Amino acid sequence: MNKIFSHTQIDLESLSLDELENLAQKIRQEIIKVVSKNGGHLSSNLCAVELTIAMHTVFDAKTNPFIFDVSHQSYAHKLLSGKEEIFHTLRQLDGLSGYTKPSEGDYFIAGHSSTSLSLAVGACKAIALKGEKRIPIALIGDGALSAGMAYEALNELGDSKFPCVVILNDNEMSISKPIGAISKYLSQAMATQFYQNFKKRVAKMLDNLPDSATYMAKRFEESFKLITPGLLFEELGLEYIGPIDGHNLAEIISALKQAKVMQKPCVVHAQTLKGKGYALAEGQHAKWHGVGAFNIESGESLKKGDSKSATEIFSQKLLQLAEKYQNIVGVTAAMPSGTGLDKLIEKYPQRFWDVAIAEQHAVTSMAAMAREGFKPFITIYSTFLQRAYDQVIHDCAIMNLNVVFAMDRAGIVGEDGETHQGVFDISFLAPLPNLSLIAPRDEQMMENIMEYAYYHQGPLALRYPRGSFILDKEFNSCKIELAKAQWLIKNDSNIAFIGYGQGVGKAWRVLIKMQEMGREINLIDLIFAKPLDEVLLKELADKSRLWFVFSESVKIGGVASLLQAFMQKYDLNIKIISFEYEDQFIEHGKTNEVERKLELDEESIFKKIQKHI
Amino acid sequence: MNKIFSHTQIDLESLSLDELENLAQKIRQEIIKVVSKNGGHLSSNLCAVELTIAMHTVFDAKTNPFIFDVSHQSYAHKLLSGKEEIFHTLRQLDGLSGYTKPSEGDYFIAGHSSTSLSLAVGACKAIALKGEKRIPIALIGDGALSAGMAYEALNELGDSKFPCVVILNDNEMSISKPIGAISKYLSQAMATQFYQNFKKRVAKMLDNLPDSATYMAKRFEESFKLITPGLLFEELGLEYIGPIDGHNLAEIISALKQAKVMQKPCVVHAQTLKGKGYALAEGQHAKWHGVGAFNIESGESLKKGDSKSATEIFSQKLLQLAEKYQNIVGVTAAMPSGTGLDKLIEKYPQRFWDVAIAEQHAVTSMAAMAREGFKPFITIYSTFLQRAYDQVIHDCAIMNLNVVFAMDRAGIVGEDGETHQGVFDISFLAPLPNLSLIAPRDEQMMENIMEYAYYHQGPLALRYPRGSFILDKEFNSCKIELAKAQWLIKNDSNIAFIGYGQGVGKAWRVLIKMQEMGREINLIDLIFAKPLDEVLLKELADKSRLWFVFSESVKIGGVASLLQAFMQKYDLNIKIISFEYEDQFIEHGKTNEVERKLELDEESIFKKIQKHI
Repeated sequence: MNKIFSHTQIDLESLSLDELENLAQKIRQEIIKVVSKNGGHLSSNLCAVELTIAMHTVFDAKTNPFIFDVSHQSYAHKLLSGKEEIFHTLRQLDGLSGYTKPSEGDYFIAGHSSTSLSLAVGACKAIALKGEKRIPIALIGDGALSAGMAYEALNELGDSKFPCVVILNDNEMSISKPIGAISKYLSQAMATQFYQNFKKRVAKMLDNLPDSATYMAKRFEESFKLITPGLLFEELGLEYIGPIDGHNLAEIISALKQAKVMQKPCVVHAQTLKGKGYALAEGQHAKWHGVGAFNIESGESLKKGDSKSATEIFSQKLLQLAEKYQNIVGVTAAMPSGTGLDKLIEKYPQRFWDVAIAEQHAVTSMAAMAREGFKPFITIYSTFLQRAYDQVIHDCAIMNLNVVFAMDRAGIVGEDGETHQGVFDISFLAPLPNLSLIAPRDEQMMENIMEYAYYHQGPLALRYPRGSFILDKEFNSCKIELAKAQWLIKNDSNIAFIGYGQGVGKAWRVLIKMQEMGREINLIDLIFAKPLDEVLLKELADKSRLWFVFSESVKIGGVASLLQAFMQKYDLNIKIISFEYEDQFIEHGKTNEVERKLELDEESIFKKIQKHI
Repeated sequence: MNKIFSHTQIDLESLSLDELENLAQKIRQEIIKVVSKNGGHLSSNLCAVELTIAMHTVFDAKTNPFIFDVSHQSYAHKLLSGKEEIFHTLRQLDGLSGYTKPSEGDYFIAGHSSTSLSLAVGACKAIALKGEKRIPIALIGDGALSAGMAYEALNELGDSKFPCVVILNDNEMSISKPIGAISKYLSQAMATQFYQNFKKRVAKMLDNLPDSATYMAKRFEESFKLITPGLLFEELGLEYIGPIDGHNLAEIISALKQAKVMQKPCVVHAQTLKGKGYALAEGQHAKWHGVGAFNIESGESLKKGDSKSATEIFSQKLLQLAEKYQNIVGVTAAMPSGTGLDKLIEKYPQRFWDVAIAEQHAVTSMAAMAREGFKPFITIYSTFLQRAYDQVIHDCAIMNLNVVFAMDRAGIVGEDGETHQGVFDISFLAPLPNLSLIAPRDEQMMENIMEYAYYHQGPLALRYPRGSFILDKEFNSCKIELAKAQWLIKNDSNIAFIGYGQGVGKAWRVLIKMQEMGREINLIDLIFAKPLDEVLLKELADKSRLWFVFSESVKIGGVASLLQAFMQKYDLNIKIISFEYEDQFIEHGKTNEVERKLELDEESIFKKIQKHI
């Protein structure tokens, strides 16, 4: 094996500091090289190189659970743990995942934020029960700490006192060297001198108080540990080391060794620089987080000028609406640029907010705004709305509030793969009373639907795809009315294609092929998956008895399933064939390649349809 | 109007302290009287009487958002705000809700924990945009603070600095008077004397440091506020008053007045006693939280000896399994007695945990245990699993882990009403790959299924009803095998009743009526809603073309919908009639009364079926 990157713990321990630093540089170069070709997470990975090397130097990854939060910073780990030969296949179909994955030898999967501490607690409990000596090591970014889930876990971790190392990869506070140094001075020198003196005075005073004061004495002692920036963690019962320089290997290794022998839960607070080592990306937060292929020298994107993305259409139209209607407000949970809400936050900072990784809070706080007469647009990736499912039900749907769930990245998301696919939203939202489901087929309809959304009464879930709409035929757009579908191509055929959202574009592409064969087919844009246009569908059922359904959603509980229920309700005898996704998680890769593998590309669908007619 | 309880703010302000205390006593008596008849939340409501009176005295409930977390402590609020004449209808069908409800004049609905702070943040933003002077007042218990959602909200509230009052109803820390007094002494006297001196010394020292040290100086100052027990809140940027005696009206009113004028987010920390004023309930945590009708003098339950509840069956069987299989572990999110996990936590404290109100953490921490080879039973109410939906998908289903979701309270839950109905779980879980869905019809099958669950590979969602199984016929139980249904009554009829879980009991009851009319009907226990028993269903389809489906779940995405998809897949022409719930939230009331109103009681179903055959 061509061992440039792959190292065991024993290997790494035997290397000098210079050699380790050299390794870090090589890893950085390899990451930049591969990400510049395949796209991926750049700045978070560059940021975590030294931390990852130190983890592998102090702990054996084969026995200790290495838990990467979100795992969008696990490239160095992949290289160190034997994936160097396939690292060039990163994020490609059948290639290496961009996240950690047990089938690739990792401890756990992660793609959503803030799960690492809960996983660490579970691992701690398991290790304790087995009577083993392993220690879970969780690497978590400061951003991920805003999610409530992380606090739930810290709360138990601090209480349970299981041995565990939490590396806090803090790339927000890393402002400049002097502050880091003073901070260290304070946490060390002062925390001894001042603290000790003060503690004595407090103890002396407490001597004059009754016995029951021991409770408060303890509180006092605890309070005074907090001269360090580790305040929050110590309040929650965890040990704290830091802040340290997260790019200084000697410092990190020393801190991890210290944490390792503690036999308690310990937070190692490391300050790092996002994009470290690639000058163009250093300190740039949003821009270099997730990137497509780029030119290493210039930093310019190699992506050809795509047509306008659904996100851009959303962002521009919402800006227009927000100007017109003063009661429109909106929120994103840490995805301002991904959702296009950044432009609105910039222009109307009093009406649009990024509330950090806090999907639950994002939804419920907007529910209260709706209660107060505002019209919130909750702008969120389909997959992340899963994090706020109860809030959608309990705080919006029961209350029948006028909120819009603007779900970006609905459907197959491409290279991010199974943790990010936005394929469940229709299934989990359709069963909720009061909630309506809508989706546009193209830019013009997206704008019409957003106009409509403003006036819609009750919660409305609007889904749109990652990237651009694929429909390349301009059908006349229609005025949006509740539960009104649109008959795009109407004829006497006994076959109908029914599309929803991006599915209309797919249906159209297949329909052209059918037309080329001389076959006429009805084409319907459902517009609403709920409530259905019962009038139009009944009319359709009168003549077309074979319906093909196109939607980027799972079959179970998906669009075809909603149509089947309609059929049963009215005792209609229609054959429905769904081109939604089968019951399996969908892997990563370019969207069109993934679709081909699933046999849901146009060619495969075309062939399947021919078998049916 | 017979005005004993109902008061405006102006009324209350004009009352003397004695009169207010007298009012508190009357409210307590009324709550005890009505709850002893109708059942309800006793201890949390008794605990919050003075806090609620003080809220209404200092703030006008008509203009300021009064936000009750979980709102299981809102009875005094109901009495004060004009519901006294209908208070005796509490929790009854068409009567007053046991929770807050906008249709009853309240600001927001709540039944799930920890939403109040997010609602307060939303209200703050709305008020700021409108340029109004109103202030949201949130009343939240210390238990609710364990949920991550509350931290997400505090994080923004502390940062945004909007005027807002958070009353922390702390009934855990109320240990004894002396400690409370010292604590107060410390937070006042010492927080002035010591703090001021120390701050000066720090400031002096910092003078000798470079300019950039102002950052740390600020940190220091912040750190030293923490001599009070309000540490956590102040770290998060909120003002803090307390701790105060939450049963001392003068003290509460004074604190709220202080908070009111601050024009900042402020936590008023009140220590209270659960069950205050009803001697039998005082300080009893779990027992008197939610109760059925009881004798006020003896405290004894008036409920007739029901047959064994599904919860009891679960608890006993899991205890048996846990003895037999050492790798079984389990978790509850703050519902140890409600889920029956209390007995296991008591016997095996190293293997079963109550992790507080933290559903997300509960699921993901158990996912890690499953990864380590343990077999977790995640014991949770169906409605609360909604809080951990993403964790079910992202941390369990994608990983295909061997975890059991033991979902108690699936189906209609009765008096708790719309926020607690466990009717969505089938719809939101069935679309998830790798996950199987199972439900028992009676005690014996519950035990068999739990035995099976231990060996089942992959995540398994097991649902069972609140209360007892209603099936009163002992069919031979069968060995559970994946995707195997059971044909309970087999004949040549072209009609079949298909039941799932409690639905089998309902189907049987209707079936008896049909038999009395001389009509033979097939009866199938589906056992698995996913994967379906395709062999049995195809055989059934060969002769029975009219299927009636019985399940305590919503129609959209429910059991009938899964059967419809099966039919379409195999091109079977079956008429399926579902007796699942229509697309509306289900109100509170006794389960049988609610079912009658929904026309899903046996008599109504019987009539509907007669129309079809």
